Amino acid sequence: MSRRALVTGATGFIGRRLARRLVASGWVVSALVRETSTSPLLLDVTAYPYDGSTESVVRAVSDTDPDVVFHLASLYLADHTAEQVSPLIASNVLLAAQIGEAVAASRSARLVNTGTAWQHYDGDGYRPVNLYAATKQAAEDLFAYYSDARGLSMVTLTLFDTYGPNDPRRKLVQLLIDAARSGERLVMSPGEQTLDLTHVDDVVDAFVQAAGRLIDSETALQERFFVSGERMTARALAEMVFAVAGVPMTIDFGGRPYRGREVNMPVDGSAALLQGWRPQHRIETYAREVGRAREEPVAS
Amino acid sequence: MSRRALVTGATGFIGRRLARRLVASGWVVSALVRETSTSPLLLDVTAYPYDGSTESVVRAVSDTDPDVVFHLASLYLADHTAEQVSPLIASNVLLAAQIGEAVAASRSARLVNTGTAWQHYDGDGYRPVNLYAATKQAAEDLFAYYSDARGLSMVTLTLFDTYGPNDPRRKLVQLLIDAARSGERLVMSPGEQTLDLTHVDDVVDAFVQAAGRLIDSETALQERFFVSGERMTARALAEMVFAVAGVPMTIDFGGRPYRGREVNMPVDGSAALLQGWRPQHRIETYAREVGRAREEPVAS
Repeated sequence: MSRRALVTGATGFIGRRLARRLVASGWVVSALVRETSTSPLLLDVTAYPYDGSTESVVRAVSDTDPDVVFHLASLYLADHTAEQVSPLIASNVLLAAQIGEAVAASRSARLVNTGTAWQHYDGDGYRPVNLYAATKQAAEDLFAYYSDARGLSMVTLTLFDTYGPNDPRRKLVQLLIDAARSGERLVMSPGEQTLDLTHVDDVVDAFVQAAGRLIDSETALQERFFVSGERMTARALAEMVFAVAGVPMTIDFGGRPYRGREVNMPVDGSAALLQGWRPQHRIETYAREVGRAREEPVAS
Repeated sequence: MSRRALVTGATGFIGRRLARRLVASGWVVSALVRETSTSPLLLDVTAYPYDGSTESVVRAVSDTDPDVVFHLASLYLADHTAEQVSPLIASNVLLAAQIGEAVAASRSARLVNTGTAWQHYDGDGYRPVNLYAATKQAAEDLFAYYSDARGLSMVTLTLFDTYGPNDPRRKLVQLLIDAARSGERLVMSPGEQTLDLTHVDDVVDAFVQAAGRLIDSETALQERFFVSGERMTARALAEMVFAVAGVPMTIDFGGRPYRGREVNMPVDGSAALLQGWRPQHRIETYAREVGRAREEPVAS
């Protein structure tokens, strides 16, 4: 009998890759998708509309009767303006409360949630880098209610930086690979900050394993793990990408300042990794392969 | 020169009493009030409309240029239905983010926020009694960002149960006094849970003193205090109220069960009281006075 999954954020970089993996593994996959979304879903994924109401979330959960809900949807903004406060709360806090409400009331009541290492500006404690990270903490504190009082069984996976094929987010790894290919100059910060990088397929592994933990557990879980990968400075990353491409570096280090709250050293996640999960991909291998081949065709 | 205050929740039980005290102390008091509100404000308080947008909060803060913002507005629900998830998030989380955004950007950037002891179902740590308490924690998570990254100077006052004249909330103290007066039977839980009760004027003292702390501090504060008063079981409270009224008890103890997550012993706030603040009012005195006189006329 097939497992059933409901995925939020299934049109995003990680969510799409997760949905593809679940479909390939024989899961019946549904996605909660904003009514206004124009991003295509995978062919084998059924869309359920989210109109902003709790009712629409309850209906999607009730109609799909999922064994596990994977909550990856979020609005990411490194910085925000006053006008973006309401959308940040709606996407990252209200939807979380609605997911908690609906999943806690569902038959299986299992949730894999997504957090960010940016909830920890320095040290293990809560100290948000930006309002985005604060909204993710707020979401966790709402889920804590559903977990403690309503029987929700959940695992939160706290992500650092991620990379991989078909990443539409224009993050540093992709920008560097593109610059090494095109020879264009890239203006960067001085680059001494340490990054923590995980390949999207390792991240997907973590989500699948977290779901397995929830399914295998006889009791309701309330757990949080870090999905921590390779660590290197931004400068070392750049040097590596250009080295494997075999071209001279075209990076202007220090051409722009560090961000206001640049994370110099990410929180140490090594003590709280998901049991049995270890990253299988290396970024040097990825940079080499991408340098050789064109990007994979966009998944249908 | 008069101090200027902007108060949210100024039509509520505590907010109205706080606004009255501030006006009496010579403050110029404004109130952020929902466009749809029909509750009257005090005569000397100027209303600024809140239409749900961040812009309306920014405008109220900018127009009033307050020395201190007192954030008391909240939607309180002991239990909630699925339909009430969105209003809880809007009132208790979105508005908090908007207040944080607006106050952090203001000249004085000082905020007194209101928390609830129900964020601590047992022990000192975060464990919410209900979704209401979880939304108050979520609000604190968001304020922590504005405090840490945007220069907001703030004190959160964590309240337990409160009582006092003209309380429209029909809480236990008032129900007991009314029952002792009328001779009507009151059906209660077994009554062994401990309550922590503070008179509204002591609570108002705490808000005024917290504002003083913020004004006197040369540096931005990020502080949290408990406003903890007298402790007794619900049963002892009932016995006291009927004893001072000199009438036989008309309480059916155990006629209803405890709530699902009844707080048996509130978190110990004694180690984190606001410096210099101690409750001045005793509930026995209050019960005696209210028993003698009719209620005060409703404040204009």
